[in-house]
Parts: sequence; C-alpha cells; structure tokens
Amino acid sequence: MAIEILRLGHRGERDKRISTHVALTSRALGAEKIIFTEEDKHVKESVERIVDSWGGDFKFEVVKSWRTYAKRFKDNGIVVHLTMYGENINKIMTEIREDISKTNKNLLLIIGAEKVPREAYDLANYNLSVGNQPHSEVAALAIFLDRLTEGKTLYSEYDNAKIKVTPSKSEKCVFVEKD
Amino acid sequence: MAIEILRLGHRGERDKRISTHVALTSRALGAEKIIFTEEDKHVKESVERIVDSWGGDFKFEVVKSWRTYAKRFKDNGIVVHLTMYGENINKIMTEIREDISKTNKNLLLIIGAEKVPREAYDLANYNLSVGNQPHSEVAALAIFLDRLTEGKTLYSEYDNAKIKVTPSKSEKCVFVEKD
Repeated sequence: MAIEILRLGHRGERDKRISTHVALTSRALGAEKIIFTEEDKHVKESVERIVDSWGGDFKFEVVKSWRTYAKRFKDNGIVVHLTMYGENINKIMTEIREDISKTNKNLLLIIGAEKVPREAYDLANYNLSVGNQPHSEVAALAIFLDRLTEGKTLYSEYDNAKIKVTPSKSEKCVFVEKD
Repeated sequence: MAIEILRLGHRGERDKRISTHVALTSRALGAEKIIFTEEDKHVKESVERIVDSWGGDFKFEVVKSWRTYAKRFKDNGIVVHLTMYGENINKIMTEIREDISKTNKNLLLIIGAEKVPREAYDLANYNLSVGNQPHSEVAALAIFLDRLTEGKTLYSEYDNAKIKVTPSKSEKCVFVEKD
C-alpha cells in the first residue's frame, strides 16, 4: 500500500508552517508524497531540505485539479477525508484497515486547512473524524497514520540518509555523514 | 490521572499557530492545561475562544520557572519529555502506561519548539521519541497521547459546550446553542 496526502485549502503565508508540519509528518509516517493545489516555495524547500539530509524519496507535487486527481485515484485506490464532522475513528478504523489490506489498494488521504468543498465529502470513500473537537490537522493526520501503520514506519531506514538518529535513553545519538 | 503539557521554547510570532495547534490538540486529547514560559496573547485567546464555545475547563497558564514547576511536579508525578532523540516509543510505551496506571500519578509532558535545554532531558523520567525523523511536535504529542489514552478522550462530552458535533458518515451534524 502506497500512501499519498492531498492538502486542500493551503493559504500561502498563513499556513506555510502548519503545511510544512503536515508534509513532514506525512513523510515520517510512511507516505510517499504530498500533493498541493498550488506552488508553495517555503513548504517545497523545507521538504527538499529534509529529504536531502534525512534520505528517502518523499515528494512534494502540485496538481492543477485536485478533483480530477482524486477521482482518478479512486478508480484503483481508497480515498479517506479527515474532517471533524466525519465518522468516529474509534468505530470505523478497523473497517478501513481491513478494506485497505483486503484490496491492497493505495490510499489517498485528504487533509483540509480551512473549509473543504462539499465534493471532497462526496468523493471520499470514508469521511473520518479524529475526535469531534477543533484541534489540528497535523494531529489528526498523525493519529490516523499511526493507527493505520501501527508504528511500523516510525523508525524506517531511509536510503541516502546523511543524518541518522538512534533512539537513546538520555543522550543524543546522531550519525552525520561527512562531506 | 491528570495530564499537563509544558511548552518550551515557544518563539512568539513565529510559533503562534503551531503552539495553538499544540494547545488545542492537548485539550482534544484530554489534557487539563498547557503551561507556557511566557505570555502569548494569540495562543491564550485562541484557547479561551475554543473553551468558551466548545466547553470544558482546559487552561492556559504561564509559569516563571519551568524548572521549578517540573521539579515540584515530579515529586508526585511522572515527567515525559518528547524528543526525536529519545527512546523508541514502540518499545517503551507499555512501560510508561504501566508506570502511570500502577502509581496513579499525574503526567507532565514536555514539548519543545526548537532546542530544549539539557536539564529537560535530565529531569524527565522518560525521554521519548515518536519516530527518529524530523517532523512535528504537534504530531508527536498527538501520537503519544492517543497511544496513552487509546482514543478514550477523543469524543468526550464537555460541560458548558455551546457547540457539539455528532460524528456522521456524510453530513455535518452540528448542534449550536442559541443565545
């Protein structure tokens, strides 16, 4: 299963740091790419800087029409839209996990910033809430992916990593490749 | 068990939105308060606005010395510091959960923005990593609290809530109290 993240409603300057957190969280939890609907130099460069130092192949991409992209994806994939109005994650997560593992389909996860167009709700296979309180799309994304992957992606080895951290009780254990 | 969040290294204007996400995620996952080391009007007002509409008793507090606060807390509580250099959450989480449930102690969770002083590492009962890749303190906090609470706090009923959302498959089900 490949995981892609579609970031809707990103508002340039205002959202640049939150959207960067969304992107880096996606990468750290095993997603392959994040898709924006418009260019954002800050987010793109932050992602590229991390990939350059920490390795792997995570991608920042821009699509012209997210509707077209999501519809095509759905032909052979599962679309999950995270929204505070959606179904209770505690009740529906098992079904989603089984759906993905049975069909071995790829996953597109839609993450809104502010208001998300109605079509996202209609298009998604699942509209899913991570709690019914206003909090953070970074948190919702993290919890969903953590429950989906059960921690398996959190300590992955990345190809071409110049920096590696080894978990440690009380010291910083960092390997940095010399130029 | 009561949960408190200590936010270190918050840098005013630069971090105001990320710190607000940290605060609201803490609230949505069952924490009782968030503690800053300096005033921040933006975060404070965001928290108060959410509590006013969505209910509950979550608090924003400022302490003069986080060291004194954390040391005192540790006399009768457990201090966990989230850091990408810490122990592997997949390996240590069961021990932390058992430690908390056996002792019935309260939990102070230290969340850094940028660099965290060495004392935080020494003071904490556990230095814990949520993955060994750079991502987001909002994501790390969310995953830790979700694993700790096992989703039990995500759909809590809040006292004095003027707005309530009922999870739904395809509609927005929102209850808004009239003035």
